[in-house]
Amino acid sequence: MNEFDIINIISKNISYKNGVERGIGDDCAVFKLENQHLVITTDMMFRSTHFPEILTPFQIGMRIVTANVSDIAAMCAKPLGMVISMGFDKPDLKFIDEMSKGMNFISKEYGCPIVGGDTNKSKELTLSGTAFGITNNPIYRGGNLGNEICITGTIGRVFCALKILEMSKNGIIDKLKFEKLIEEFPEIIKKLSEPKARVLEGISLNNVVTSCSDISDGLSKDLNHVGFFEIYSKELLKAVPKDVVEFSEKFDINLIDIALNSGEEFELLFTVKDFKNAKKVLKGINTVTKFGKVVESGKTVDGNNITFEGYVHKW
Amino acid sequence: MNEFDIINIISKNISYKNGVERGIGDDCAVFKLENQHLVITTDMMFRSTHFPEILTPFQIGMRIVTANVSDIAAMCAKPLGMVISMGFDKPDLKFIDEMSKGMNFISKEYGCPIVGGDTNKSKELTLSGTAFGITNNPIYRGGNLGNEICITGTIGRVFCALKILEMSKNGIIDKLKFEKLIEEFPEIIKKLSEPKARVLEGISLNNVVTSCSDISDGLSKDLNHVGFFEIYSKELLKAVPKDVVEFSEKFDINLIDIALNSGEEFELLFTVKDFKNAKKVLKGINTVTKFGKVVESGKTVDGNNITFEGYVHKW
Repeated sequence: MNEFDIINIISKNISYKNGVERGIGDDCAVFKLENQHLVITTDMMFRSTHFPEILTPFQIGMRIVTANVSDIAAMCAKPLGMVISMGFDKPDLKFIDEMSKGMNFISKEYGCPIVGGDTNKSKELTLSGTAFGITNNPIYRGGNLGNEICITGTIGRVFCALKILEMSKNGIIDKLKFEKLIEEFPEIIKKLSEPKARVLEGISLNNVVTSCSDISDGLSKDLNHVGFFEIYSKELLKAVPKDVVEFSEKFDINLIDIALNSGEEFELLFTVKDFKNAKKVLKGINTVTKFGKVVESGKTVDGNNITFEGYVHKW
Repeated sequence: MNEFDIINIISKNISYKNGVERGIGDDCAVFKLENQHLVITTDMMFRSTHFPEILTPFQIGMRIVTANVSDIAAMCAKPLGMVISMGFDKPDLKFIDEMSKGMNFISKEYGCPIVGGDTNKSKELTLSGTAFGITNNPIYRGGNLGNEICITGTIGRVFCALKILEMSKNGIIDKLKFEKLIEEFPEIIKKLSEPKARVLEGISLNNVVTSCSDISDGLSKDLNHVGFFEIYSKELLKAVPKDVVEFSEKFDINLIDIALNSGEEFELLFTVKDFKNAKKVLKGINTVTKFGKVVESGKTVDGNNITFEGYVHKW
């Protein structure tokens, strides 16, 4: 059984939709207010599934905020605030102090105050966030035929960082080698431990893009939101930074596989009619790379069919 | 250590408050939109702490919705929608089917559609809801000197239902006696297993009350939101239904103790300048009882100091 079996049942049963502009199936749900739209999203995280051991308490605090705010950015909306519910097994006040400082620090950076929550006893650290934002023009997933497919920032580092953790866990590298790798690839580790939600980018792109989502599961999965597409690896590689290239050579991993299967990057994946416009509005904020086109049928990279990957919860 | 040690640290650290009208410390957080106010609340529940074994999957689904929507009602606001994140240990599709049907059923009754969520693997059933609503006039906790203190509906049944479960768990009553009690006191069991959020009551009371909160922890604790007060037990007993009186006699439990320490009733506790107005607007919707006054100092029942009780998470 996997999460889709569960989601199917729930989606079928949750049929009451009064007043909802957009429900389950996008980065956020959307409500029409008087002259604006309220966008809302939720993300729940458990110690054993969601937080790599390498994360400090401060970074765990940042992460629950970032994961939620990233979905607001993916609607090209302005964050308004968020609530966070927390469950603790053996609460360590020092840990809670650091974690809540991390939450506050990053919420300030995003202009997204934390305004409430709930505290409970649980079997493991559990954080559940709900963020909400406002926009005149919510940007959904999708994309129109002929649109260029683009991405903000860089892609690939999170895959490499998780590979380092995996090799350490499986005993393929020892502690010394692990620490050397961490020193050798600081930006790779940083993208895993302190990813950023692309809030300014989302707001800036609002009037330019035809669709938008964030990279949470990895491009090969998230690209499905666009519909049918052709990806050109030569262009995609422009978004892959030098350290990822070095890493792929060092460990003999296909670079395109890395770029396509790097999840929780929290970069924005969007489509535009005119790439130059996207470049103009993001100037000085972030880099942007176009690497494909929305087409009538097929899902290909350099003409080859793409295979679905990305993380799925299984029981 | 209890939850207040944790809440104190978090509240101190979460200092960024840009644009927030009301943050931590009321039933909901409040944001000013163009001409309205957005109210938002979150409530997280774990199988082992929050769901009495007697609850069916359908009732568990109802409960997470009710607990959240009740906080919207406590702001005298109109529910707009909610999101629910879920964590499952060993997911049972039949259970999930029933639970999500319960969620949908009650969300329709409240006019509060469920618009999104998140599905995860966890160590026990975990449900985290966030509800949001809209109002022109958010009603906060508090109350003005001389105001009458009132409550909607009845009080006491949840205490009795939990007592029955406790007696069964501790072996004070056997299975047969337990089943007989459940048959003997159906309304008592129903208030525990299917409590209702007072949505219509909250909206109707909006222009009449000076403060409002819901009864989640029990009157003796929730009354602290009012400030200082005098309670008259003879008046309070008017809100205690006949079956609770019978139960108190049968098990020799002080009736006022029951009324003061019955939590998760989800009735509204509010203050008014003019009780007749409250009665008028609630006519045909629900009963209302006045049972005390906001005073300058002291917290008393029939002149005796009230002691703080109510559930606190401890580790």
